[in-house]
Amino acid sequence: MNFHTRKWVKPEDLNPNGTLFGGTLLRWIDEEAVIYAIIQLGNPRVVTKFVSEINFVSSARQGDIIEMGIKATNFGRTSITLTCEVRNKITKKSILTIERLVFVNVDEDGNPFPHGKTEITYAYR
Amino acid sequence: MNFHTRKWVKPEDLNPNGTLFGGTLLRWIDEEAVIYAIIQLGNPRVVTKFVSEINFVSSARQGDIIEMGIKATNFGRTSITLTCEVRNKITKKSILTIERLVFVNVDEDGNPFPHGKTEITYAYR
Amino acid sequence: MNFHTRKWVKPEDLNPNGTLFGGTLLRWIDEEAVIYAIIQLGNPRVVTKFVSEINFVSSARQGDIIEMGIKATNFGRTSITLTCEVRNKITKKSILTIERLVFVNVDEDGNPFPHGKTEITYAYR
Amino acid sequence: MNFHTRKWVKPEDLNPNGTLFGGTLLRWIDEEAVIYAIIQLGNPRVVTKFVSEINFVSSARQGDIIEMGIKATNFGRTSITLTCEVRNKITKKSILTIERLVFVNVDEDGNPFPHGKTEITYAYR
Amino acid sequence: MNFHTRKWVKPEDLNPNGTLFGGTLLRWIDEEAVIYAIIQLGNPRVVTKFVSEINFVSSARQGDIIEMGIKATNFGRTSITLTCEVRNKITKKSILTIERLVFVNVDEDGNPFPHGKTEITYAYR
Amino acid sequence: MNFHTRKWVKPEDLNPNGTLFGGTLLRWIDEEAVIYAIIQLGNPRVVTKFVSEINFVSSARQGDIIEMGIKATNFGRTSITLTCEVRNKITKKSILTIERLVFVNVDEDGNPFPHGKTEITYAYR
Repeated sequence: MNFHTRKWVKPEDLNPNGTLFGGTLLRWIDEEAVIYAIIQLGNPRVVTKFVSEINFVSSARQGDIIEMGIKATNFGRTSITLTCEVRNKITKKSILTIERLVFVNVDEDGNPFPHGKTEITYAYR
Repeated sequence: MNFHTRKWVKPEDLNPNGTLFGGTLLRWIDEEAVIYAIIQLGNPRVVTKFVSEINFVSSARQGDIIEMGIKATNFGRTSITLTCEVRNKITKKSILTIERLVFVNVDEDGNPFPHGKTEITYAYR
Repeated sequence: MNFHTRKWVKPEDLNPNGTLFGGTLLRWIDEEAVIYAIIQLGNPRVVTKFVSEINFVSSARQGDIIEMGIKATNFGRTSITLTCEVRNKITKKSILTIERLVFVNVDEDGNPFPHGKTEITYAYR
Repeated sequence: MNFHTRKWVKPEDLNPNGTLFGGTLLRWIDEEAVIYAIIQLGNPRVVTKFVSEINFVSSARQGDIIEMGIKATNFGRTSITLTCEVRNKITKKSILTIERLVFVNVDEDGNPFPHGKTEITYAYR
Repeated sequence: MNFHTRKWVKPEDLNPNGTLFGGTLLRWIDEEAVIYAIIQLGNPRVVTKFVSEINFVSSARQGDIIEMGIKATNFGRTSITLTCEVRNKITKKSILTIERLVFVNVDEDGNPFPHGKTEITYAYR
Repeated sequence: MNFHTRKWVKPEDLNPNGTLFGGTLLRWIDEEAVIYAIIQLGNPRVVTKFVSEINFVSSARQGDIIEMGIKATNFGRTSITLTCEVRNKITKKSILTIERLVFVNVDEDGNPFPHGKTEITYAYR
C-alpha cells in the first residue's frame, strides 16, 4: 500500500472534544479513494457504491500529520474494490481502516460500464 | 425512524460530476449521528467506533433537499448502536443507508464508561 | 413550531471570543428557512425578500447542540412569511428569535409568481 | 458611509439557483459589522444584540464584485448602533440594506460595560 | 496605498500552532488582488501570472483585525503589476508584503488581450 | 522530487471564470510545504518566512486531479529551503512552480532555533 495524500490537522478539522472530527476524516478518505479509482480506471466518471467495515482504531489531535493509503484489491467488470488505511505520518500508528470501498465505472448517463482493467496500472500509481 | 436535519444541496457540496459529493454526505451523517448519540446518552463525550455497510442507493443533485433519519437499535454497556437513512425530502427516495454506527461513551480520559441507558429516551428525541 | 435541523457547535463555527459566530448562525437559519419555504410552496425558486427583528437572546458555546424551529405565519399571494426560533437542544434555552422572514415565490425569470397556497401543507412539514 | 471590504462572488458562495446565497451574504455582513464595532469601541469583546429590517433589494451573480459599507448612527452607554449597505462595486446598484445593527460592549464575564465613546473615531475608520 | 478589505481572525483561520495559517492569508490576498485588477482593467477575465517576493514579517493571532492594501505599480500592454501589504488594523504593524503580483488581461479564449489602460482609474479605487 | 498529496478539483475550488482559484491553490501548497518541513526538521513549530518566484504556468479545471511535489534544496542553521511543483496527475503538465519556500525552525517562544539537520531525512520522506 502506498501512502500519498497528507493532512495537517488544524483547528477547523476538530470536533468539540478537541480531536479530529470523524466526518472530516471520512470526507478526506472519500476524495482520496475516488482519485485512486479515477486514475486506475482512466475514467473521471466513477461513483461510490459501497463502503464496508470502518474501524476507528485511534484518534488524531491538533498538529498531527496524517497520511492516507489506498490499494486496489479487486477488479470487477464495471467495478473496482479498494482497501484503505489512515495513519499518523510520524508514529505510523493506525487511525482508521476500511476493508472495502467499491466504486462503479459509469458512462455519461450514469449507467455501469465495463472498464476493461484487470490489475493495478503501476504507471499511474 | 424520525427525520430531523435537512440540507439544501448547494454548488459547494458537489463533486466535479455535478452530483452530491459522497464525502460531504458522510460528513453530514457523522455529525447527525453524533448529535443523536450525545442526546440519548446524555454525555457530550462519545466517540465513533465502527461504521458498517454503507449503501449508496441513489445520488442527489444541486437544489435537492435531503433529510437524515437516525434510530438507536441497541444499547450496550458502554456503547450505543444506531441505524441511518438519508433520503430526498420531497420524493422520499432513499439516497443512502447505513446498517450500524457504533458510538462509545467515554470519560474525560477517553476510556469507555458505562452510560446506564437501556432504551431510547423519548423526551430528547 | 417544529424543530428539525440540528447543529453541533464545532471550533470552525466560533468567533475569536470562543462563542458561536453570529454570522454562522444567520447562515444556518437562512438555509433552514429557505428549505421550509421551498417545501411549503412546492417550488425550488423562492428568494429571501425581508428579514425583521433578529433578537440575540443568549449565546452558544463549543459542544452545544442547537436546534432550529420554523413556522409559517402568513401566506400572501406570491409570498410566505415565516417565524423562527433557535434554541439549545438540551436546556431548551432560547438563543435567537426572528419575528418575520419573508420569501417570494418567483418564476424562471425571477418575477413574483402566485403560489396558490393558503395554509401549511402538513404532509411536508 | 465608507465602503471597505470587498468580495468576489465565487461558485462556493452560490445557492442552487445560481445567485449569491443569502446566508453567505449575512455571514459576510456580520463579520464586517463586528470589525467596525470593535474598531470604534476599542474593545475586542462586542456581541451582536439586535438586527432589524434587512431588505434584499437585488441579487448578486457569480463573478460580481460587491462591497460593504457600515456607519455608526448612535452611541449608547454600553451599545453602538450601525447601519449597513451592500452594493455592486462596479454598478453601485444596491443589493441589501440593514437599518440597525446593535452591538453591546461587554467585559470579560460577558456583562454590558460602558464604552465611553460618543462619536465616530475617525482615526480608526 | 489604500487599505480596503478587512478580516477578523477566527479559529477556522488558524494553523495548529495557534497563529493565522499562511495558506489562508495567501488565499485572502489573491482574492483581494484579483478584485483590484478586475476593477482597474474593467474586465472580469484576468489571470494570475506571477507572484514574487513574499515576506512574512510578523504573524497574526486569533481576534486580530487585519487589513489588506493593494496598489498598481505598472501597466503593461496586456498585464498589470500590483504591490501588496497586509497589516494589523489597530497597531499598523506589517504582517506580510509582496513586491509584485502580475495579472494578465485575457479574452474569452484565455489569450492575452490589450487592456488599453495606462494608469490607476481613481473613480473605481 | 516526490509527489504526494493529490486534490480533485471540485466546484468549491473554482474562481468565477470556472478554473481553479489561485488562492485555493496557494493554500494547498502552503499546507503541503509546511508538512514537508515539519517532517524533515522533526519539529511541529516551523513558520513560513519567505516565498519567491511563483510562476502560474497553466490552469486546472473542474474534475482535474492535481498532485504536489516538494523537495528540500538547502538546509540553513535554523531554516530550510524547499522548491515546489504542482502538476496535472494524468497529463503531467506543469501548473505552477515555486523556486524557493523558506521555513524557519522556532522554539516555543517563536524564536529561531537550530534544527541540527543537514540533509533530507529519507526515512520520513
